[in-house]
Amino acid sequence: MMTTLPQTLAEAEALDQADAVGRPQAFALPVGVTYLVGHSLGPASHSALARVQETAARDWAQGLVRSWNSAGWMDLAAVAGGRIAALIGAQSSEVIVTDSVSVNLFKLGAAALSLVRTREIAVEADEFPTDVYVAESLGRQVGAPVRLLEAGQGFHALEQGCVLIKSVANYRTAALADMAAYEAGALAGGGVIVWDLSHATGGIAVDLAATGARLAAGCGYKYLNGGPGAPGFVFVAESIADRLCNPIAGWFGHASPFAFSQTYEPLPGAARFACGTPPILSLAALEASLVAFEGVDPSALGAKTFALGELALARAAAMRLRVMTPPVRGAHVSLQHTDGYAIVQAMAECGVLADFRTPDTIRLGLSPLYVSFAQVWRAFDILTDVLESDRHNAPRFAVQAKVT
Amino acid sequence: MMTTLPQTLAEAEALDQADAVGRPQAFALPVGVTYLVGHSLGPASHSALARVQETAARDWAQGLVRSWNSAGWMDLAAVAGGRIAALIGAQSSEVIVTDSVSVNLFKLGAAALSLVRTREIAVEADEFPTDVYVAESLGRQVGAPVRLLEAGQGFHALEQGCVLIKSVANYRTAALADMAAYEAGALAGGGVIVWDLSHATGGIAVDLAATGARLAAGCGYKYLNGGPGAPGFVFVAESIADRLCNPIAGWFGHASPFAFSQTYEPLPGAARFACGTPPILSLAALEASLVAFEGVDPSALGAKTFALGELALARAAAMRLRVMTPPVRGAHVSLQHTDGYAIVQAMAECGVLADFRTPDTIRLGLSPLYVSFAQVWRAFDILTDVLESDRHNAPRFAVQAKVT
Repeated sequence: MMTTLPQTLAEAEALDQADAVGRPQAFALPVGVTYLVGHSLGPASHSALARVQETAARDWAQGLVRSWNSAGWMDLAAVAGGRIAALIGAQSSEVIVTDSVSVNLFKLGAAALSLVRTREIAVEADEFPTDVYVAESLGRQVGAPVRLLEAGQGFHALEQGCVLIKSVANYRTAALADMAAYEAGALAGGGVIVWDLSHATGGIAVDLAATGARLAAGCGYKYLNGGPGAPGFVFVAESIADRLCNPIAGWFGHASPFAFSQTYEPLPGAARFACGTPPILSLAALEASLVAFEGVDPSALGAKTFALGELALARAAAMRLRVMTPPVRGAHVSLQHTDGYAIVQAMAECGVLADFRTPDTIRLGLSPLYVSFAQVWRAFDILTDVLESDRHNAPRFAVQAKVT
Repeated sequence: MMTTLPQTLAEAEALDQADAVGRPQAFALPVGVTYLVGHSLGPASHSALARVQETAARDWAQGLVRSWNSAGWMDLAAVAGGRIAALIGAQSSEVIVTDSVSVNLFKLGAAALSLVRTREIAVEADEFPTDVYVAESLGRQVGAPVRLLEAGQGFHALEQGCVLIKSVANYRTAALADMAAYEAGALAGGGVIVWDLSHATGGIAVDLAATGARLAAGCGYKYLNGGPGAPGFVFVAESIADRLCNPIAGWFGHASPFAFSQTYEPLPGAARFACGTPPILSLAALEASLVAFEGVDPSALGAKTFALGELALARAAAMRLRVMTPPVRGAHVSLQHTDGYAIVQAMAECGVLADFRTPDTIRLGLSPLYVSFAQVWRAFDILTDVLESDRHNAPRFAVQAKVT
């Protein structure tokens, strides 16, 4: 998708007319809402809502335990993994849906220790906190030193042969890592990267094969729209999968779980990183939500996201807002404002949902599947109006920030 | 509930008339089905089905990210934990719903190593395979020796100061551990038990406080009826919770997750064993399913289960069937038969669902909430009829066992 920066609402609408990526009709968004929080919780698709209902009322209530076979529950984590693989430049066997991002980072971090030259774990201080917590608790568990590095210093730890837990897109700023360069550094230095794809997958084009990525964990409930707390996924490159051990060996990672063998024989590929019985209602919603990506070319998806971001950044620049997001970025755009919380509340009252992260970050998530150029244009009109009218300083917005 | 063993269907029906525990009307079971597989996957309750629909179509699709606060998602794992606590003789703060049983056994096993005299992990060979896999993979991770003991030898490992992973009710035979005796042995020897409550909670009366239990993990989808792959739970006695570290520290176990602090500060109590974002659709189904236990006295529940088992065992004895289940047992009754798979299939054709575990185990789950004495009576009538008519040897049943 080649775009020129729209200068008017009409030009933004013209881009939407020509857009082959967006499919807002697939989503059950409330009427009148512009939803810019897909980086936190993606919206429900009609296919996901229908699947949840079928899975509960038909497969569980009527099919009962037989549905493990008859409704395909046994294969669901691999099927969903295959759909995600198509979005991130991976083979089906390289991706399995399982557990939360936190647990998956732990498993991959532990497994990666067997591959590195220096038995150390590194993480940068501006990472999503869970990544730091997991690095530290894993290090304590296995007696591996943990380096908490300044932002941007992870590359050196790779050159020194460490395991580095690193986000592809930073949760706060959306700054994007140069994955290929990091992987080259890791190869040269004997280090291994556990990529955290949470703020990337489904929002931007990611091609793991092309970058040489070996290990990654990602999130099901952000740009993949899998539903609140949808299970995460694990990517393991085929070239190393069979050398790795899951540190939490559970029966769903076993090659023959219903043999009830006392000897653990892992499944081939990424599936060895499955553990316990997966949460089927949540997993089914995720699998169905991935239907919305069918027929979407990942590079076209990434191009639209980038164009949405260019529009947002241009409007922000014209308004002289403080922008935290660099040019090489993921799928959200972050603004910095001391009144951020109140501004987000005032925008929500006008139907534009964004989110706030303490102390001063406004994040605008630009999912290419359901956010349009016209919506971004109007969101900045509303933001302009809020700021010019000082509406966010109305007493009703002056409350303490809560979860958003 | 005082019962005498019914000798006729009419006497069984009379017991059902007097039963204050059963509430089959709470469940959405198919008409004509006797469901004896609650030890594997509990059935859907009407409250769970309604909650799943509300959570998806209203809270997710309409409420979107705001539902973390407005729909109570942030507190749901603790609320569900509180409901489970009431069933197992625990305080609310001692139970949190999180992750799978496999992951929870890993976390508790790792945490328990800080409490024992000998840094070793023990597990008996007849445990559910995941318990063995987790013990072995945990031991490998942290460099702790793992003892794979013969069935019944776990007590000695406690006396020697090990961590023992031990089921309250054996998954195959339903044999029940004497929890108080084990805990006494653990105290005396400096060992710690991680109880696996999977085949116990919701099926029998468990009183963790009375037995002195300190650590336990349990399953949400068996007798708690939380739905396929519902998240599991963790119990940590208040007396030791604040001394324990979660080896997989994630943001949902943090005291202030939305402060985005790089410093991990665990929640008080069992909640510190939460990790990542919980799968809300599955968790909501579990929380709603627990409504069916409201007003049920745990000891009355256990008494009814025991009485159902007495009836099943008496009928099995009269038929000279080989019984694997001892008198001190959990909530299922297991029969041993070389034609077990075909028999289970033939019974299913008559509306009685049981399950088969390779190579020769027929399990009959006797959930007190929805299984009646009359159903147990008729199930054995049907089993008698299958065996006498040799119906299970019809060619259509002579297929290889699959997942059940």
